[in-house]
Amino acid sequence: MRPSARERLSLNTMTTKQLSLDEAVALALRLDVPALGLWRDKVEEVGLAAAARRLREAGLRASSLCRGGFFTAVTDEGVRAALADNRRAIDEAAALGAPELVIVAGGLPDGDRDLLAARQRVADRLGDLVPYAVDHGVRLALEPLHPMFVADRAVVSTLEQALDLASEHDASAVGVVVDTFHVFWDPAAEPMIDRAGREGRISSYQVCDFNLPIVEGALLSRGMMGDGHVDFERWTRAVTRAGYVGDVEVEIFNADIWSRDADRVVEQMRGRYDELVAPWL
Amino acid sequence: MRPSARERLSLNTMTTKQLSLDEAVALALRLDVPALGLWRDKVEEVGLAAAARRLREAGLRASSLCRGGFFTAVTDEGVRAALADNRRAIDEAAALGAPELVIVAGGLPDGDRDLLAARQRVADRLGDLVPYAVDHGVRLALEPLHPMFVADRAVVSTLEQALDLASEHDASAVGVVVDTFHVFWDPAAEPMIDRAGREGRISSYQVCDFNLPIVEGALLSRGMMGDGHVDFERWTRAVTRAGYVGDVEVEIFNADIWSRDADRVVEQMRGRYDELVAPWL
Repeated sequence: MRPSARERLSLNTMTTKQLSLDEAVALALRLDVPALGLWRDKVEEVGLAAAARRLREAGLRASSLCRGGFFTAVTDEGVRAALADNRRAIDEAAALGAPELVIVAGGLPDGDRDLLAARQRVADRLGDLVPYAVDHGVRLALEPLHPMFVADRAVVSTLEQALDLASEHDASAVGVVVDTFHVFWDPAAEPMIDRAGREGRISSYQVCDFNLPIVEGALLSRGMMGDGHVDFERWTRAVTRAGYVGDVEVEIFNADIWSRDADRVVEQMRGRYDELVAPWL
Repeated sequence: MRPSARERLSLNTMTTKQLSLDEAVALALRLDVPALGLWRDKVEEVGLAAAARRLREAGLRASSLCRGGFFTAVTDEGVRAALADNRRAIDEAAALGAPELVIVAGGLPDGDRDLLAARQRVADRLGDLVPYAVDHGVRLALEPLHPMFVADRAVVSTLEQALDLASEHDASAVGVVVDTFHVFWDPAAEPMIDRAGREGRISSYQVCDFNLPIVEGALLSRGMMGDGHVDFERWTRAVTRAGYVGDVEVEIFNADIWSRDADRVVEQMRGRYDELVAPWL
């Protein structure tokens, strides 16, 4: 049976960065949120085995683990370190029961301006990691980031690039993340969501708004749904039309939201989700 | 005869925002910069006729006038006002001898989240304006802006969108601007520069760097060539390969640069241009 919209809601731990994992678990139970999207730092704070146990005991799903990637290094040493860290992330996702490991490609090495070569290294590193990920039952969920992050965080900026990189691998091994903040500007994103659906590659649908003015550093410009400029009906209809029936993670980096009471934030999040996202799932 | 790289250098008045038009003219003469890219506010300060006379007497070319556009209004009144302002901008470009009027599409109206409809209005307004521009011998130079400006400044984010919009009109009526800051992230930009060349639509090549961290509001993140993450060899080779032999405008919005002595800024600009851009023209 198709899960209900409420059964598909996932709280990404970044939205309540002010909480420990234990606190986020308790909050999810209290407010009836059935899944968490996990960042590795929150898992590390309590330890992997303990984190997996807490989720299991609470009956919460881990919708994804964030993040692997950052593997655009040029030097042999840098490549080795990135691969080792990504294998650890795959181990962690498997232990937590997270089916998807979010992969953020990484930016340009210091002083390097060659985006084409960096993108080729992303393809190479995906190739290196896929067998290990498949062995561990974890899918690599490649996330294109907004082009404002191309130099420092992700040389993969569009769903089309992500799908082209994924196409070298089986759909069960490499998928893509559709994050409204990162794709809403892109005139090609809707047809690419269709394509991702046809190819069975939508790993995750992440929602948050695009706030203005852009804050210094741009990272914390993500906003609560409804506070910014994203048309959630359009994007949610698109992933639904593409056949996506998985979790919908709310992942917000926002200094103001982090300074507020987390219960109020998650109550507001549920309300905005019910109003702006759920009708189109 | 093909002009030399130095003959193609144009100082955009935004790079020396601290100067009046008269001061910018004097500086260009002093430092042997043969052209100015003009913003309308600088022209307005001295008046159109006086500005045109100063340029003529100084023997400086106006490589472009910036800017028209901002014509995504929904209301009849908003549309009328935008068209009237754009016709004035066309008049001004003609009076100044600027062959290209830079067009920035404009963002979403307040509270509006429908990018597709806004993009259609851009197509409609271009259609409204083309006959007037053609009558006045001014080409509309549609400039895609970096996707971080999609909501507030330009719903046209890529060269491909700009070329598709331009394709409804003759190449002598509507061209596109290639600005390194706005396009360097785009994996499709190189083939689109080739296409723009084939179609005879490269109106302007504007250079500046992409600095990090992004500053609040993002607008002033433009940097002096060499200070950021843009590969000027790659992009300059691309426009050259596409057959572009026009002016190269240096247009930098940057609070630090505006606070410095303008002569030193333009000397540095010339040096960076000679080093990073000119070899590939």
